[in-house]
Amino acid sequence: MGTFDAPVDIVRDAAARALAEDLGPLGDLTAALVPADARAVADVVARADGVIAGTACATEAFAQLDARVTVDWLVDDGGLVGAGTKLGSVAGPLRPVLTGERTALNFLCHLSGVATATHRFVVAAGDRVRILDTRKTLPGLRALEKAAVRAGGGVNHRGSLSDFVLLKDNHLAGVTITDAVQRAHSHWPGRTVEVECDHIEQVEEAIAAGASMVLLDNMTPEGVRTSVALVRDARAQVLVEVSGGITLENVRAYAEAGADVISTSAITQSAPALDIGFDIAVTEGG
Amino acid sequence: MGTFDAPVDIVRDAAARALAEDLGPLGDLTAALVPADARAVADVVARADGVIAGTACATEAFAQLDARVTVDWLVDDGGLVGAGTKLGSVAGPLRPVLTGERTALNFLCHLSGVATATHRFVVAAGDRVRILDTRKTLPGLRALEKAAVRAGGGVNHRGSLSDFVLLKDNHLAGVTITDAVQRAHSHWPGRTVEVECDHIEQVEEAIAAGASMVLLDNMTPEGVRTSVALVRDARAQVLVEVSGGITLENVRAYAEAGADVISTSAITQSAPALDIGFDIAVTEGG
Amino acid sequence: MGTFDAPVDIVRDAAARALAEDLGPLGDLTAALVPADARAVADVVARADGVIAGTACATEAFAQLDARVTVDWLVDDGGLVGAGTKLGSVAGPLRPVLTGERTALNFLCHLSGVATATHRFVVAAGDRVRILDTRKTLPGLRALEKAAVRAGGGVNHRGSLSDFVLLKDNHLAGVTITDAVQRAHSHWPGRTVEVECDHIEQVEEAIAAGASMVLLDNMTPEGVRTSVALVRDARAQVLVEVSGGITLENVRAYAEAGADVISTSAITQSAPALDIGFDIAVTEGG
Amino acid sequence: MGTFDAPVDIVRDAAARALAEDLGPLGDLTAALVPADARAVADVVARADGVIAGTACATEAFAQLDARVTVDWLVDDGGLVGAGTKLGSVAGPLRPVLTGERTALNFLCHLSGVATATHRFVVAAGDRVRILDTRKTLPGLRALEKAAVRAGGGVNHRGSLSDFVLLKDNHLAGVTITDAVQRAHSHWPGRTVEVECDHIEQVEEAIAAGASMVLLDNMTPEGVRTSVALVRDARAQVLVEVSGGITLENVRAYAEAGADVISTSAITQSAPALDIGFDIAVTEGG
Amino acid sequence: MGTFDAPVDIVRDAAARALAEDLGPLGDLTAALVPADARAVADVVARADGVIAGTACATEAFAQLDARVTVDWLVDDGGLVGAGTKLGSVAGPLRPVLTGERTALNFLCHLSGVATATHRFVVAAGDRVRILDTRKTLPGLRALEKAAVRAGGGVNHRGSLSDFVLLKDNHLAGVTITDAVQRAHSHWPGRTVEVECDHIEQVEEAIAAGASMVLLDNMTPEGVRTSVALVRDARAQVLVEVSGGITLENVRAYAEAGADVISTSAITQSAPALDIGFDIAVTEGG
Amino acid sequence: MGTFDAPVDIVRDAAARALAEDLGPLGDLTAALVPADARAVADVVARADGVIAGTACATEAFAQLDARVTVDWLVDDGGLVGAGTKLGSVAGPLRPVLTGERTALNFLCHLSGVATATHRFVVAAGDRVRILDTRKTLPGLRALEKAAVRAGGGVNHRGSLSDFVLLKDNHLAGVTITDAVQRAHSHWPGRTVEVECDHIEQVEEAIAAGASMVLLDNMTPEGVRTSVALVRDARAQVLVEVSGGITLENVRAYAEAGADVISTSAITQSAPALDIGFDIAVTEGG
Repeated sequence: MGTFDAPVDIVRDAAARALAEDLGPLGDLTAALVPADARAVADVVARADGVIAGTACATEAFAQLDARVTVDWLVDDGGLVGAGTKLGSVAGPLRPVLTGERTALNFLCHLSGVATATHRFVVAAGDRVRILDTRKTLPGLRALEKAAVRAGGGVNHRGSLSDFVLLKDNHLAGVTITDAVQRAHSHWPGRTVEVECDHIEQVEEAIAAGASMVLLDNMTPEGVRTSVALVRDARAQVLVEVSGGITLENVRAYAEAGADVISTSAITQSAPALDIGFDIAVTEGG
Repeated sequence: MGTFDAPVDIVRDAAARALAEDLGPLGDLTAALVPADARAVADVVARADGVIAGTACATEAFAQLDARVTVDWLVDDGGLVGAGTKLGSVAGPLRPVLTGERTALNFLCHLSGVATATHRFVVAAGDRVRILDTRKTLPGLRALEKAAVRAGGGVNHRGSLSDFVLLKDNHLAGVTITDAVQRAHSHWPGRTVEVECDHIEQVEEAIAAGASMVLLDNMTPEGVRTSVALVRDARAQVLVEVSGGITLENVRAYAEAGADVISTSAITQSAPALDIGFDIAVTEGG
Repeated sequence: MGTFDAPVDIVRDAAARALAEDLGPLGDLTAALVPADARAVADVVARADGVIAGTACATEAFAQLDARVTVDWLVDDGGLVGAGTKLGSVAGPLRPVLTGERTALNFLCHLSGVATATHRFVVAAGDRVRILDTRKTLPGLRALEKAAVRAGGGVNHRGSLSDFVLLKDNHLAGVTITDAVQRAHSHWPGRTVEVECDHIEQVEEAIAAGASMVLLDNMTPEGVRTSVALVRDARAQVLVEVSGGITLENVRAYAEAGADVISTSAITQSAPALDIGFDIAVTEGG
Repeated sequence: MGTFDAPVDIVRDAAARALAEDLGPLGDLTAALVPADARAVADVVARADGVIAGTACATEAFAQLDARVTVDWLVDDGGLVGAGTKLGSVAGPLRPVLTGERTALNFLCHLSGVATATHRFVVAAGDRVRILDTRKTLPGLRALEKAAVRAGGGVNHRGSLSDFVLLKDNHLAGVTITDAVQRAHSHWPGRTVEVECDHIEQVEEAIAAGASMVLLDNMTPEGVRTSVALVRDARAQVLVEVSGGITLENVRAYAEAGADVISTSAITQSAPALDIGFDIAVTEGG
Repeated sequence: MGTFDAPVDIVRDAAARALAEDLGPLGDLTAALVPADARAVADVVARADGVIAGTACATEAFAQLDARVTVDWLVDDGGLVGAGTKLGSVAGPLRPVLTGERTALNFLCHLSGVATATHRFVVAAGDRVRILDTRKTLPGLRALEKAAVRAGGGVNHRGSLSDFVLLKDNHLAGVTITDAVQRAHSHWPGRTVEVECDHIEQVEEAIAAGASMVLLDNMTPEGVRTSVALVRDARAQVLVEVSGGITLENVRAYAEAGADVISTSAITQSAPALDIGFDIAVTEGG
Repeated sequence: MGTFDAPVDIVRDAAARALAEDLGPLGDLTAALVPADARAVADVVARADGVIAGTACATEAFAQLDARVTVDWLVDDGGLVGAGTKLGSVAGPLRPVLTGERTALNFLCHLSGVATATHRFVVAAGDRVRILDTRKTLPGLRALEKAAVRAGGGVNHRGSLSDFVLLKDNHLAGVTITDAVQRAHSHWPGRTVEVECDHIEQVEEAIAAGASMVLLDNMTPEGVRTSVALVRDARAQVLVEVSGGITLENVRAYAEAGADVISTSAITQSAPALDIGFDIAVTEGG
């Protein structure tokens, strides 16, 4: 398992769930009408520029459907392709090739959409900063989407609420940042403790309190620059995250303001599907 | 269960899966740091114009998390709201209110995004046509997305491959439309049999063969108009679906060409999340 | 996947559930007592005349139990056999052959029972009509039973409540058939809309309203004949289903009255098991 | 949990699986068309004489579907009723009452069918013997069917292969009954060890070896009588089971031959459904 | 499946659950950092004396993680080994070898711990008695622990509450042992009926009532001796179990007092893990 | 959910799995023999000194078994109690009280055993250090055991491999610590990066490379003291973990050597069960 891959158990379960969803109780009524001995080869082809992700899910879906279907990839997860690029091919009996097409494409199109959106932010932001995802993911698809973010050149924020501590204003009801950070270190020693900061005084307090990461929320690039200066002056090993209202247009300005990582939900929750086609040729028996 | 609702078992399973995904093995590290006796009320507020969907999932998520949390909705699924509208409120102990926020919003934002995108197509298309979804949905979320399409004023195409027959060109390898439709009626009597047609001769053959629905794929509005005329002339009860390259800009032209239903994957696979906020007020004990 | 096959995911899950049910926490206490190196071959033999179904479930059960067991079928699903016919053979280590016998036979005997009962109705009804199943199936076994019905020469009614619309009298409380059918077409365009009719006036109204299928419930053959005449006169493409009190004795009369499809729960809910034996020969090491 | 009840976890899972199977991805298309505010009361009525089983499954199905539906039983599992007897009532919003009807009845009709078939054998056999089920049950439904057997006055053989030891001829390949029984007692001390016997010499050996139960397979009543005499002479606490070819006609003869328990798969694998109706009255709002 | 093996379905599910638990949403962050083409061989080595169990679980975990990993065992379940013994080896790509190590060892260390603890009691008790487990097992791990008990030379008491009848004092509220045993035989004919006895009068009554097993709870060895004499005098085939406060020190005394089986929860609920190491050598590409 | 609590979904699933495991297909054969109307109250009582954990699992098990059973706790998770302390009471119908006893106790005894073992290390180590768990947990029980560690006063290391980076020697094949740490920060920015060190030079390199945590493996207390001095001299915010061969006897020496956290698998993998009793009194109807 490399950094681009989702855990195998999650790929396996997601493929099983997606197939069950699409097969229904009677299976593919239409594919059942084609000759049992017809065979086909299908090309998987990008119809738009983008970054590919989700190949393991597509492979797994066909494997679960029918062991006689083979799937070969010319492009792996993380591959940057142009419209028209052949990504891989699927070969086997016509019926399961037809039946599995949509499930495979639904994974590929969505996850490549996530990877592509991530890649766009990565390019727009430039080399001095990393693009980070959020927990704003589609229910049940988080692990796959986070792998797609990595495929797109981004990096992952928390996988779940149990990864590390992120103190937002509602967690600070009645306590100071200093107290909250100390409490966090005491209860969860060794874990990253991040503090969401809306203004510069909070950044100062978070650094002093020993936070390992600060989240600058909805600040201007100028506010970010000031905050970063504070961190550097303190010679603290504090990672600076910027979030809130990030767009392809303004991400470079935040990057240049000195942020270490910039997070956006746009790359998961609102990433449009990448258009990928499935060109089937019946090879015999049809 | 009305037409807007997803089946209860699916809501229940989706909420359980999403919670498990977000709680992780240790639970919410951060919420565990706030006082156990603090209580909160949160307003769920639309931050953009749109149509709401997914309230049942949000309610279920909090119910599974902690029975002491109450969720009340001022707006139901299908409600058209403006930015700033308060949709409902969540009240209970601060910890589960904080912990459940993201899971609840992930459902609401995505499904309201689907409903909103659907609504936009419905409005753009006008009253003489219905907007139809496709099987291009996010893996594991189809039933919820199809309910959201209904909430947005759209209608549903096949829920799974076992719903009815849709003959595409790859299903017709080596057989005529006439033969294929007869075969479909013979194997699956009583089921809708739809035929994908790329040109007018196929429409003629499909009607004559007894198809109950034709899918006009990637035709111009003019081609659609001609096809519809054919159907009307045949006095056949054939539903005309138009698909392929539908946009908010051209959907009205296709509607005016006489289509009965117009389908697009844009309302599911590429619908951006609706921005919905969660404004928490700690009410006591914090 | 052909028309006789159940969806692979359902076969896989059903086999897993059945094995778990039969293995219990300690496994097969008795098989554990035979020598580990003993090998066996078992003939699967029909002990009565019938139609075979469920071979995929039996194969899957042995595959899940022990990959060293091989299963070969001489007769496929849908095969009509006489008592004494060897259906296939199972070979491998004696222990898993003994352990898997009952699970495999429970699938084969029940599903072949369903296929056989269906076949009897198909033969009794004659060529002019199709035998249709219902939703009166055994809980958790519907998809397998519906595949067995197809193996027996029958066809499938709704797989679930979300397949198409079937308006019964309780759905018509306070509304006319005309209104209900229009409502159905409006909410679920493209879907089959069937109307249950107890008398001829309802048939007339259903046809006029645009129903695509009528269910003549508990009518006499004469009533059916009159209804069919109505449909033919209207030149409507309406499928006529007859249901209620159908037996092997009266099914031909209903067929001759002109029904298109005749449905009965007898083929699923009350189909007796087909007697199938498992003759084991220990080949070595015992 | 009394002797008639199936374990709660199994009832819960079976109801969930059955509902998922029937709701499909879109839910009940037809029920969605009736007014949301309509309410109904349904009488559950036996349409044939029989013994009732499966009420807990029916109740659970409605509870999972909609908490507002109430289910009240006038007859409990094990109740012997005549055709026309009102068994209970279901009240609540019309939509879930309509939607849950079939799932609830599928449990009730099948399990009451099992209980009724059992009861018939119990009555036919008389008081001196107990009717026993087998492992020939429908895949995934064993625990529910075994509870239904108890409701019908029968008793349960092994629930799974891990319950106790049953040595059949294939388990004896190359070893004597004496050796096999000793091996069984050694590996699984305290467990029942039953030996299948085809002739009287095997019965003698099994008793001498210390078997706690003998299964007389396909013997005549006279053979059974001789075997029972052997057991009584040995003053051994050995339970005598008779199996193979048992019918309602011959069961009494076997009972009078002195068997302790008589087993038959007819009561599970081939029990016809008991006809039970669901008479809905719309009470308001329809 | 031999007596040492746990049912395959349970091994499969346990491995899947353990992997999911350890992989988390992002997978193994650390293994993702090593070169994709590095390969490794790992020796599985006992670091303490003991009896091995759980090899099937370890093999299954690696198989589910990555089909390219091979696992070979030099020692099977039930093998008695000294510290330093090489138990087997794991070879394949470095990443999954690293990732699967902990899951595999968690099974091996715990289950070998159970087998080892069992073996110690077996040795201490001597040849005239068998060591029996209890239902005091770790939640979700019972079947695996019971297989480990068998690997350690012990035997299994009830696998679940549905195996056989064990009457304790709370089951006897208001009824005599005689009545309770008769009731048990009547409801569950053929099943073992065991009676827990705290004093000699109860043993007498249980024997007379036809119990097949008595559980002498917290008796002294002398009390056990008296009870055993009673059983032998009655010439009854009653198995005598001793339980309560059994230690490695006193187990021999109870054995010599004539018990047939001696049960203790120490071998499951409180068995310390056996120390087993995993020595990885990177073979290429690292 | 406080720091002592396991996530609700995990408690729910664990209770369901444990109940299914213990109920078996036929349910509790013995409890079915007691009168249906008998009621009972049971005291849950500690029979040894220890710290309590797992009350939520016990409550959940009874709730799932029978909603009429009430469970009240006098001692919460984390409570330190002496032998004889009444922990809580369970009241309801006798049957489910009897049936649920073992499942509830299996959770309580094991998890309190973990909490108690943790507490012993906490006390032995003194106030200047925290006791940390490991990933050496029982398969399928990690989240519950980690909650029990918190209840015992300990803190949690990684919940899964996806929490943070821990570089061991096998991860360093062919690369320097410096390179590996930089790679880790680059791939997983913001995450804790811990480096396992066997000698002082590695500690120096890890600190210089920017590790946030060092794991001193199998060092002497003197080696730990030197390493800690290095860290303090570097004025780095590096957490020092000590692991390997920690016992109740030597833990204080390591604490005094300046470790921040000390980890041991003894508190999870080898924690003996805490002896907890369940004293039932039948209150009526027995």
